[in-house]
Amino acid sequence: MGASRETILETIQSYVDLVATGSSADVVALYADGATVEDPVGSEVRTTRESIAEFYGALDSLEQTSKLLHARVSGNEAAFAFELVTKAGDATYTLAPIDVMTFDDDGKITSMRAFWSGEDMVVG
Amino acid sequence: MGASRETILETIQSYVDLVATGSSADVVALYADGATVEDPVGSEVRTTRESIAEFYGALDSLEQTSKLLHARVSGNEAAFAFELVTKAGDATYTLAPIDVMTFDDDGKITSMRAFWSGEDMVVG
Repeated sequence: MGASRETILETIQSYVDLVATGSSADVVALYADGATVEDPVGSEVRTTRESIAEFYGALDSLEQTSKLLHARVSGNEAAFAFELVTKAGDATYTLAPIDVMTFDDDGKITSMRAFWSGEDMVVG
Repeated sequence: MGASRETILETIQSYVDLVATGSSADVVALYADGATVEDPVGSEVRTTRESIAEFYGALDSLEQTSKLLHARVSGNEAAFAFELVTKAGDATYTLAPIDVMTFDDDGKITSMRAFWSGEDMVVG
């Protein structure tokens, strides 16, 4: 039995919340052992907990807000669009990727692939 | 060299338009030879042009409108959310999946996976 739809949607909401306002350790704790991260799609796949922690660690010092826009679950996989707004001085940088994730039976993330490119960044 | 971002976005827009208002043959023509379709994710993967044509053929007799909501391209892959509204008598059935596609160098679709589940159908 895979994780329930509700559990997967909870993990997605936690991910979106914690990417903006949690510590990198909080985000990494959502991942299962052996998980992989490819962000953006086409970049080198991160396969160790250390390299995943390093990836999210880059966000720790930023002032960010986030919002889940649209989530779709199919079995133990899901895709969702979310918006991440970073404030730096008077500027705001808005990126709204679509992430695809797979989940284990406990609702932990076993893989994440993020679809976006530089053209999608909106500077305001 | 892969297809350009612009070519991929054009294919996605054509797909969304043709799923609603084109013939199944029009939709199938967007696919490369050897393409695969998994709709919804977790269902049996269609691997022949005949089985893909059969899948879209089921939509041919329906009165539908569609709208692209959000598309993200990463290299030769993309994810996008779109809305498909089907009218049947006085009822409307709205489904907004997130599709993930890969593309060949000409911008033809080489694979499609659609994320949605029955709970996402809105009846109005």
